[in-house]
Amino acid sequence: MINVGIIGYGYWGPNLVRNFAESPGCRIAAVSDLNAGRLQNVKRRYPSIEVSTDYKDLLENNGIDAIAIATPVSTHFELAMQSLKAGKHVLVEKPLASRSEECFNLIEEAARLQKTLLVDHTFVYTGAVRKIRELIENNELGGIYYYDSVRINLGLFQHDVNVVWDLAVHDLSIMDFLFEVYPCAVSATGMSHLNRQPENIAYMTLFFDRPFIAHVHVSWLAPVKIRRALIGGSAKMVVFDDLESSEKVKVYDKGITTNDDIENMYKMLVGYRVGDMWAPNLDQTEALRTEVAHFIDCIENSRRPITDGESGSRVVSILEAAVESMTKRGTPVQLESPWSKK
Amino acid sequence: MINVGIIGYGYWGPNLVRNFAESPGCRIAAVSDLNAGRLQNVKRRYPSIEVSTDYKDLLENNGIDAIAIATPVSTHFELAMQSLKAGKHVLVEKPLASRSEECFNLIEEAARLQKTLLVDHTFVYTGAVRKIRELIENNELGGIYYYDSVRINLGLFQHDVNVVWDLAVHDLSIMDFLFEVYPCAVSATGMSHLNRQPENIAYMTLFFDRPFIAHVHVSWLAPVKIRRALIGGSAKMVVFDDLESSEKVKVYDKGITTNDDIENMYKMLVGYRVGDMWAPNLDQTEALRTEVAHFIDCIENSRRPITDGESGSRVVSILEAAVESMTKRGTPVQLESPWSKK
Amino acid sequence: MINVGIIGYGYWGPNLVRNFAESPGCRIAAVSDLNAGRLQNVKRRYPSIEVSTDYKDLLENNGIDAIAIATPVSTHFELAMQSLKAGKHVLVEKPLASRSEECFNLIEEAARLQKTLLVDHTFVYTGAVRKIRELIENNELGGIYYYDSVRINLGLFQHDVNVVWDLAVHDLSIMDFLFEVYPCAVSATGMSHLNRQPENIAYMTLFFDRPFIAHVHVSWLAPVKIRRALIGGSAKMVVFDDLESSEKVKVYDKGITTNDDIENMYKMLVGYRVGDMWAPNLDQTEALRTEVAHFIDCIENSRRPITDGESGSRVVSILEAAVESMTKRGTPVQLESPWSKK
Amino acid sequence: MINVGIIGYGYWGPNLVRNFAESPGCRIAAVSDLNAGRLQNVKRRYPSIEVSTDYKDLLENNGIDAIAIATPVSTHFELAMQSLKAGKHVLVEKPLASRSEECFNLIEEAARLQKTLLVDHTFVYTGAVRKIRELIENNELGGIYYYDSVRINLGLFQHDVNVVWDLAVHDLSIMDFLFEVYPCAVSATGMSHLNRQPENIAYMTLFFDRPFIAHVHVSWLAPVKIRRALIGGSAKMVVFDDLESSEKVKVYDKGITTNDDIENMYKMLVGYRVGDMWAPNLDQTEALRTEVAHFIDCIENSRRPITDGESGSRVVSILEAAVESMTKRGTPVQLESPWSKK
Repeated sequence: MINVGIIGYGYWGPNLVRNFAESPGCRIAAVSDLNAGRLQNVKRRYPSIEVSTDYKDLLENNGIDAIAIATPVSTHFELAMQSLKAGKHVLVEKPLASRSEECFNLIEEAARLQKTLLVDHTFVYTGAVRKIRELIENNELGGIYYYDSVRINLGLFQHDVNVVWDLAVHDLSIMDFLFEVYPCAVSATGMSHLNRQPENIAYMTLFFDRPFIAHVHVSWLAPVKIRRALIGGSAKMVVFDDLESSEKVKVYDKGITTNDDIENMYKMLVGYRVGDMWAPNLDQTEALRTEVAHFIDCIENSRRPITDGESGSRVVSILEAAVESMTKRGTPVQLESPWSKK
Repeated sequence: MINVGIIGYGYWGPNLVRNFAESPGCRIAAVSDLNAGRLQNVKRRYPSIEVSTDYKDLLENNGIDAIAIATPVSTHFELAMQSLKAGKHVLVEKPLASRSEECFNLIEEAARLQKTLLVDHTFVYTGAVRKIRELIENNELGGIYYYDSVRINLGLFQHDVNVVWDLAVHDLSIMDFLFEVYPCAVSATGMSHLNRQPENIAYMTLFFDRPFIAHVHVSWLAPVKIRRALIGGSAKMVVFDDLESSEKVKVYDKGITTNDDIENMYKMLVGYRVGDMWAPNLDQTEALRTEVAHFIDCIENSRRPITDGESGSRVVSILEAAVESMTKRGTPVQLESPWSKK
Repeated sequence: MINVGIIGYGYWGPNLVRNFAESPGCRIAAVSDLNAGRLQNVKRRYPSIEVSTDYKDLLENNGIDAIAIATPVSTHFELAMQSLKAGKHVLVEKPLASRSEECFNLIEEAARLQKTLLVDHTFVYTGAVRKIRELIENNELGGIYYYDSVRINLGLFQHDVNVVWDLAVHDLSIMDFLFEVYPCAVSATGMSHLNRQPENIAYMTLFFDRPFIAHVHVSWLAPVKIRRALIGGSAKMVVFDDLESSEKVKVYDKGITTNDDIENMYKMLVGYRVGDMWAPNLDQTEALRTEVAHFIDCIENSRRPITDGESGSRVVSILEAAVESMTKRGTPVQLESPWSKK
Repeated sequence: MINVGIIGYGYWGPNLVRNFAESPGCRIAAVSDLNAGRLQNVKRRYPSIEVSTDYKDLLENNGIDAIAIATPVSTHFELAMQSLKAGKHVLVEKPLASRSEECFNLIEEAARLQKTLLVDHTFVYTGAVRKIRELIENNELGGIYYYDSVRINLGLFQHDVNVVWDLAVHDLSIMDFLFEVYPCAVSATGMSHLNRQPENIAYMTLFFDRPFIAHVHVSWLAPVKIRRALIGGSAKMVVFDDLESSEKVKVYDKGITTNDDIENMYKMLVGYRVGDMWAPNLDQTEALRTEVAHFIDCIENSRRPITDGESGSRVVSILEAAVESMTKRGTPVQLESPWSKK
């Protein structure tokens, strides 16, 4: 039985509390938040859980094995590092930290202390994304040509991070899970429509060392909500529409065929293939439920999480590069291979 | 009565022929195409129209007042220039020419000879785009924040031009008509998935000298067809979905309100406003019908076309810059104001 | 402060408990259910609420002012009648009772004891239905021509009532609220696809003493979920799609115009009018929240509920007639005016 | 080479002319219409086709082998009968005639003279309906539970026939093709919203001698266009949405499973099964093109048409019964088996 403490009960914290509360193999010992009013809500719903406005009470509590952190991004590093040093396993809401260097430090500390460090890349644990990964692993899509995502709505403008850090992080974590490649360069553009505020609309292209291109469009200022990714492969193509109540993943047996034009060596004959469409049935388990079970399993069996510190740091490195490119209106920023750093 | 000759009877030519044939105030005298088989199709449907495999027969025909050109882009300049020099008014399929310098030459020649030069920016003549322009002119949308367009499907791969020249040209011509601003820089990225072939997927951001940003996503390799532009204003926002059978234009009374936070001068309180949605009834006239009528009117009354040579050249200048930026993976390319050149 | 007791904690009961718990002006004193396991769930979430497997404990509790009943339909009458006799105000889940005679008895008893009797016709309290009523009251739709509803999905097959009692009851309660007319006859057809089970698919036409027709299609055995009603008026027409996340109500300025054909007195010239579409912004308050507040207000101020016993009995009378018609394969069953009975 | 004459060049006639003109194996010799202006349109587009305002010119023309009839329903019988007697093969627009007795006479006459008689049940020749038939024949859907169709829009009000004869005829012809059963009774309801005009909205339930039910909703007075049929089977269920540009047919691997409840012999345990969805690629050939080729083939090889006179008469018999039921507000009208009549 893993005893868990949760720091932060704002937007995402209640989801963590609900899922840890309802998962077998763990127990919530305490919740902390700076806001006493929120803690009253915890008490009303979960009278047996201890609450505190001081997160240190949780770190000093020897009965607590693991800490889950759902606070503003700027505090992730400090809280995660202190939790690790206090001997706790750690789950951190996405993104792992504000800077890639902080991520590296967390990875090292977790390794040194042999503690589980899991980043809450929630989408990785959805039935939809796991099904797409299965299709790719079984080579059903063929060679991957592109990933194109639109993630927009009239969303909550944030003051501390821009829309890339808030929303594109989801696509970067999905790609990190689906494709075993890391971008070599990023070109990003964006704009803030409010004075002295972070960008509320942004576009990001990722380049790779192969004929694969990825693009993400994120916005807090769209009249309609769209959550849709297209994944093009040489054999089949996928539409992942997260707003569909069912049939979130559609697989199209469509594409092109090519033949060299014998009469003209510089030309190529392109043919078009249109076949069936197929929407596989998906596991409907709430992603956070699956993630919590995986966290418990990693702790108990000393397994490496699917969304470990390394995946968190890879995502943060791309976010940093995107922000840099945005200040230079799309000028590409090179990325080092995360594996070459080791 | 304007007598018209049409050069090119491939993909778009039949639409020009049908619309000129059914429009009052004009008559089709002749059609030319290099392919004799296509000319047989003309004869079968329109037995009274003369046909020729040599376009020069049309230029030398003194009974012909105007020439409409629907041939590959690389031939636009030469055919349009010869037509002007032969004393004809000219309608050219989009884009006006392959290079902006060619556009300038055509503009000068048309001005010198006092002939009408109209670029076939078809979307400008749709009921949908004209309604959006009306909304903007009446200041219903407030200040314009962004234009975002997705124009993708499993489309015909072309060998001579890339997908930006084929599809983004539509959005550039729409923006040229809707907004009285010209971009100061372009950042574009893209990729070809076939060896030695032009890019089949591309992304383009346009920057302006004000807090307005535009983005266009075009692709010939998508599993689904999307033709949708979002236009965000400070007062209202528009979704233009060209695949809707009715309600192509939806106006959302949605947006944000801002107040300075008195306690924190670096922060801003953002409020959200959600009101009604409204889909205005649109003129259903075929765009090409309206365009042909406008062409005839410009010739007869010496009026300047809405989509004149200048608009054609502005669009081509942006396409050139986008291609240049694409070769440099998104590095922005500056654009001179087209008005400063004069 | 109204003290409330809730009988039944199965499918709908938890929604009642949550809404009474979070509404001002009332307090939940006790919950009863035959199933002790469910009562443990109540205790876990709401430790201060008393629980009992015997509903009589609630009726005998003098501290309780009002009872809300969310049990199988066949028990509604008995529980509501006992609650009234125990001096309680009563809220009953739809439909009010199994037979119209039972409804009349409940109405009489509530009137005699001067207690509030409210039927939980939830849809009547949604922002969407209230907006449609407003449109009708303001005569925006003109004369009403038809109401047509489809309410289908792969739904929970019930053993005690057929699909008409389960789903069509929603449409009957919506119509009872929207239109001030009562049907004069019902024709219904349907089928059970399982042996010895109630009908799982059904169709019902309602006739009125004017040129207005209503039809409801309900099914537990459809591959897709549809919740859509069309309301046709002489001036405008409405589409109410409850599965739309926003824009649930769309108003179409569409219709026909008629002129007598002077040359042919037996013919009529029909014209077609197509104008704008408009989706009014809707109150997003949860319907049950609004209903609970209305129940409290009716109790405290001795007001007559919008969904009173009479509306409950009118709905049940139509359901009875529909079932009778179904056994005779659509042969219409006449309905007496509910007002003529008084 | 079959020489064809076409009577009627109103709404549907031009489609027949275009398809016969472009089909191999036949030639259009002449077209007749009462309206001389329409015949000018024929001449302009097809200068080689003879035209006449008198259909008898076509019947007397010995060079003509087959007649296609696209005139008002009330004239079908007379024109088809005269064509047969003149020794022509006949294709008649749906429905075959105004009364079932007329249909029987046409069938007999065609048989006696050994001429092909084909009813233009166009939908039967679509890729979508043929694919659904294939699914049924291969037993992919299991036992068929229901057919439910909605066919509504703001449509052309007709003066001579009601909406059932205009639109429900499509569903009856589709069902006649898909299912090898004939209804034993019909219950229909409907209403006219214009004085002295035929019904513009109608509902029809078909009963069979097995646990299969069919329902059709048709309307000329709906704010939105819907063309959607649901077909429920014990194994799988189909949604046929004719307005989808692709994926018109979706096959859902969904349904219920049943087990007898051992503890309660009157109850049944119902389980729910939700699997993949699949949209087969469809033949995109225009239905009328396929139908014309089939007509030619039937003539040349003395084959019986898929949509022969018998299918035409079965459809008309149901329409007659539906109209009778409508006058009696849904009272069911029995249908004799069409096979028992022989």
